[in-house]
Amino acid sequence: MEAPSVLIDLFVLFAAAKLFGEVFGHFGQPEVVGELLAGVLVGPHVLGLVGEGEVLELIAELGVILLLFTVGLETSVGELRRVGRAALLVGVLGVVFPFALGMLLMVGLDHPTEEALFVSAAMVATSVGITARVLRDLGAVRTVAARVVLAAAVVDDILAIMVLAVVSGLAEGDLSTTELTLTFGLVAVFLAVAVLAGPRLVRSISRMGHLPFVPNSPFIIAMLLTLGLAALSETIGLAAIIGAFLAGLIFDYSREEVASQVQPVYDLLVPFFFAITGSILDPGVFTQGSILGLAGVVTAIAIATKVAGGWLGAAHLGRRTALTVGIGMVPRGEVGLIVASLGLGIGVISTDIFGVVLAMTVVTTLVTPPVLGPLVRRHLRELRDEEARHREEK
Amino acid sequence: MEAPSVLIDLFVLFAAAKLFGEVFGHFGQPEVVGELLAGVLVGPHVLGLVGEGEVLELIAELGVILLLFTVGLETSVGELRRVGRAALLVGVLGVVFPFALGMLLMVGLDHPTEEALFVSAAMVATSVGITARVLRDLGAVRTVAARVVLAAAVVDDILAIMVLAVVSGLAEGDLSTTELTLTFGLVAVFLAVAVLAGPRLVRSISRMGHLPFVPNSPFIIAMLLTLGLAALSETIGLAAIIGAFLAGLIFDYSREEVASQVQPVYDLLVPFFFAITGSILDPGVFTQGSILGLAGVVTAIAIATKVAGGWLGAAHLGRRTALTVGIGMVPRGEVGLIVASLGLGIGVISTDIFGVVLAMTVVTTLVTPPVLGPLVRRHLRELRDEEARHREEK
Repeated sequence: MEAPSVLIDLFVLFAAAKLFGEVFGHFGQPEVVGELLAGVLVGPHVLGLVGEGEVLELIAELGVILLLFTVGLETSVGELRRVGRAALLVGVLGVVFPFALGMLLMVGLDHPTEEALFVSAAMVATSVGITARVLRDLGAVRTVAARVVLAAAVVDDILAIMVLAVVSGLAEGDLSTTELTLTFGLVAVFLAVAVLAGPRLVRSISRMGHLPFVPNSPFIIAMLLTLGLAALSETIGLAAIIGAFLAGLIFDYSREEVASQVQPVYDLLVPFFFAITGSILDPGVFTQGSILGLAGVVTAIAIATKVAGGWLGAAHLGRRTALTVGIGMVPRGEVGLIVASLGLGIGVISTDIFGVVLAMTVVTTLVTPPVLGPLVRRHLRELRDEEARHREEK
Repeated sequence: MEAPSVLIDLFVLFAAAKLFGEVFGHFGQPEVVGELLAGVLVGPHVLGLVGEGEVLELIAELGVILLLFTVGLETSVGELRRVGRAALLVGVLGVVFPFALGMLLMVGLDHPTEEALFVSAAMVATSVGITARVLRDLGAVRTVAARVVLAAAVVDDILAIMVLAVVSGLAEGDLSTTELTLTFGLVAVFLAVAVLAGPRLVRSISRMGHLPFVPNSPFIIAMLLTLGLAALSETIGLAAIIGAFLAGLIFDYSREEVASQVQPVYDLLVPFFFAITGSILDPGVFTQGSILGLAGVVTAIAIATKVAGGWLGAAHLGRRTALTVGIGMVPRGEVGLIVASLGLGIGVISTDIFGVVLAMTVVTTLVTPPVLGPLVRRHLRELRDEEARHREEK
């Protein structure tokens, strides 16, 4: 039915992504970075083993829709409520600082406002996945610092997705206040309706499972909801992934069963998003000194603003915890790349600037584990010592 | 990244397929028929809710690749060896009869040879899935008749896939003996290498799972193998699904783990193949009396030849068993549709004839459960009576 090349492309992308993912994982690095670099390598600008086109874009989009559904599924509304002031503060500061400084820098360097908006939006979202994975690998998920980071990353993600929705809306109209209000209003209404009415709808469906003609597999209902909200979201002018995230957020029954069934689909489709995203990058852009310089500055700001936001937000929890939180918030991942590829797709950011965002994502993701690891290990040792002292005192 | 319409198309196809599948399942009919009819209904020729294009074709192709991988996975080489003469005879006769009569009919009616080949090839393959499902629903999987049907369906599938490979090869070259020998030789070499060297290769990979840089998830290795063999198969001129089937056949470790992980991917992707295949059908073709007539004749031949093949092949097992086997072999499904859509794709069969094959598939699949059910139930009752008599005699 298809030209053979598409199947070959898919095989090459999948094989390269898995191989590089394994290599990175073996050296204690995030697999997602390996998958990205695999895409850069096999893509049309380097080895040229893989082409580009509409068909690959759809596969990438299905991957990212599934990724955001999974992130939403892992985010419970209850967890958000228990978050506490620290996480909220860390989350908000961790969004405001990078966005503000990103805008200042990009507009100061005379980039168009839309491009500045997309780059700044891409600097906002902490990658929950990477942070959580480092903490889980070290057995430190239940420390205060870890809980603050994880909860703040959730706040962060929701804010980032709202920023993304606003930015996408702006990029399509002009920048009038009416447009801004409208876009923000639309996002708010969609979020509110989905969050308020969604769980009730989902529960009603779950109760109808015994009726004829209604699928009684929670997984199938979850996939219908995800495709449906993604399509609806795109139809009303938001990004499809916002709908997918909401689908995961409001899907609140049989979560564990659905999560375990989504896992293989995730394993199969998500690497395509990263590999295909990587394949768009032309590493040649970094031979231009100005682009390399910009990438350096953007990355430095991305790191400094997140550390500062985390540190300030968690200052009352003690110096070490505050620093752990700050560093834990540094890695950017999925959402940053999604923002950048959306911007590239609608033509408001150039391939040069796409390279800058990709470099920022890769560097922030790569530097975090080696810094966070020793910090968390020392923190864990201190906690154990403290516990031992407590026991001795008794 | 994509036009919104593709996501909407995917949602509409998935929702319609699941709804119709549930409705058919509720009335004891095969869900696959519901999925097909859902596609016909929402497709461009009836309601027009869904378009057509390269992107949907790839999704359909991924679905069918996954389907054939699963069929291969469920087929163990050992099972093939234990099959016994009855199953082999039933399988071979069940291929030879429909193919021969199909060719006679189509060539007799002055259809082009390529078209005749594709229609006849589509008449060959029993749908293991539908037969197995009916038998499983009735708790009759362990009867002699059931075992013969299931094993014969395997023989049948392999022969059908070889017929398909030959037919596809022929359709691209001309019909010289050299071409025929070459194509058949290529298929034989590919099958032999895959079946002989494949399991050893797979076992070596499974043993390397502890080495760095080698993915240690059997599911990922299975998907790599499937995409790889599908791409390779298409590159050397065979259908991608032949490679996918072989991947399932030779993947012989952690089968159960892989099968359970493939299931959600299957649930998500396979319905797209049937719905998208259905959407290609223009039911308007049946308003032409000649097409409707042809569909009737082809369907009658498809039913009669399979019943005859099953009956003759299993005659030595007793009348009732032979009849059960014959009826059990009637439903055509996946493979027939695959053959027809391949033929349509490369332009050797017309949309009219595609409609004929689709009608044959739908009718053979729809008529079987209501006939097979009572037959198997009576057979089971007899077996129980016999057992009771045995016990009394003791």
